Amino acid sequence: MTTFVFGHKSPDTDSTGSPLIWEWFLNHTGTDASAKLLGEPNTEAAFMLERWNLAKPEIIDNVADGQPCVIVDTNNPAELPANINGADVQGIIDHHKLVGGLETAGPIEITIRPLACTATIMHDLMGKHAGCMPENIKGAMLSCILSDTLEFRSPTTTDTDRALAEKLAGELGINIAEYASELFAAKSDVSAFSAAELLRMDSKEYEVEGVKFRVSVLETTSPKMVLDRTAEIMEAMPAVAGEDKVNEVLLFVVDILNEEATMLIPNDLSKRVAEKSFGANVTGNTVVLPGIMSRKKQIIPSLKV
Amino acid sequence: MTTFVFGHKSPDTDSTGSPLIWEWFLNHTGTDASAKLLGEPNTEAAFMLERWNLAKPEIIDNVADGQPCVIVDTNNPAELPANINGADVQGIIDHHKLVGGLETAGPIEITIRPLACTATIMHDLMGKHAGCMPENIKGAMLSCILSDTLEFRSPTTTDTDRALAEKLAGELGINIAEYASELFAAKSDVSAFSAAELLRMDSKEYEVEGVKFRVSVLETTSPKMVLDRTAEIMEAMPAVAGEDKVNEVLLFVVDILNEEATMLIPNDLSKRVAEKSFGANVTGNTVVLPGIMSRKKQIIPSLKV
Repeated sequence: MTTFVFGHKSPDTDSTGSPLIWEWFLNHTGTDASAKLLGEPNTEAAFMLERWNLAKPEIIDNVADGQPCVIVDTNNPAELPANINGADVQGIIDHHKLVGGLETAGPIEITIRPLACTATIMHDLMGKHAGCMPENIKGAMLSCILSDTLEFRSPTTTDTDRALAEKLAGELGINIAEYASELFAAKSDVSAFSAAELLRMDSKEYEVEGVKFRVSVLETTSPKMVLDRTAEIMEAMPAVAGEDKVNEVLLFVVDILNEEATMLIPNDLSKRVAEKSFGANVTGNTVVLPGIMSRKKQIIPSLKV
Repeated sequence: MTTFVFGHKSPDTDSTGSPLIWEWFLNHTGTDASAKLLGEPNTEAAFMLERWNLAKPEIIDNVADGQPCVIVDTNNPAELPANINGADVQGIIDHHKLVGGLETAGPIEITIRPLACTATIMHDLMGKHAGCMPENIKGAMLSCILSDTLEFRSPTTTDTDRALAEKLAGELGINIAEYASELFAAKSDVSAFSAAELLRMDSKEYEVEGVKFRVSVLETTSPKMVLDRTAEIMEAMPAVAGEDKVNEVLLFVVDILNEEATMLIPNDLSKRVAEKSFGANVTGNTVVLPGIMSRKKQIIPSLKV
């Protein structure tokens, strides 16, 4: 029975590329595997697929009982198919905090490491087989690392991520600065999306002292493209919060090149969050948070209400 | 701040030896670490400590807020200090199924592998540093593997566990059969324990269709020593179940040498469990289950009510 490999819902580059990387590795080492997606890849991930001639994996919305699966880039049941605990989960490869809620029938292979990128962990797990990766798989791996580290600007970046990206770029004859610009331009092209889609594009739910947040991030080299739509986005926030059963949507527009985030301030709660969490001095309907790039390492651990 | 390394409550050989192995590794690689125990080691673990001149780690019953910890041989909060989610858990090395319930503030190092023994996973994680292990750490590692695999008889045994044990025994000049006999004799010497202590010595809670079980195992080369006390043990079961807030205690006396388990049948529920789970034909107050050696691989996955 073919093993499905998939990442989280609303797949970004790492959750699109890592399933393809691991699909290659499993097939290479004798396990019949197939990468899947739990939704339409974002614009950056779609760019990666096209750039490296990788076929877009099939999009699935649930898994059958007993379906062999390897989960990558998440361990959070909320970001996985509803029936995930009915599937035969055989492995998890991830770089997020342990959330709890996933249960397995027996002991399985779980590797979670505090690296910037799932693909970096996979390279390590492959051992000598990594030397057999074809160009398109190396290209996907490089894309995942540059995306997750924001070209090494994110504080999640480790020496291991950086060294691997530089090695892969060398082997592929890729100029990292140029290629990262192409990736980020693709990620920044969000003109086709509605305000509600922008709020859910790269978003995690997180609860602080009983208050449920949807913590949304938009990483972009063109913050103006999003911030010009501030009024429209703020108007969409209450409906998104209501539909997704959270108390509040927080949106951080991360300016990749200037290494800062702009947080939208639609109401008193978000104003208080900005002041208590980041020591911000809020006067208008947005506030700039210098140096804030990473939800995982900076925003979530700071969040106070 | 010193990193504490500990396994589960009611420590067996793997949960006593693995903290010492990882304490050595962390100190060897520059992290100040100290092995701890969450209870008195069992008789086999105590034998291992004495045989290899290892000082018994300090027994602790809770951890302070922010205490750096590495958890080994479990990922189950029920088997850990009450304040474990307040501690600074930095890593988990385990070979049990993912239970859920542990949460970490950020991404940490988690390695779970379906191997028989935590110590085997540690050897793999150490890489080239494994070559620097002193004799007593090698001795602890060998003891953990022989204990958890019941000298390679348990179906949890993998080629990796076996090859490592054979390599270590060779380096230490240890005859595996002789040393395993000494270990199992130590484990089998349970004469000093009350019936309630026997029921809690090696026990995991497990729920099937709303019925909560304490699934207790006694691995022994002298099953008669335990089974002679069947009446006394069955009498103690309801009180233990009541105190530990489970519906029923199941006891499996695993005969290491004859590779079978004897299950105690104090009432209709345990009779039904034996019949539905193992196809047993129950006539008296005990029933022999041929080939059953492993709670993890055979008993828990089969359990039906």
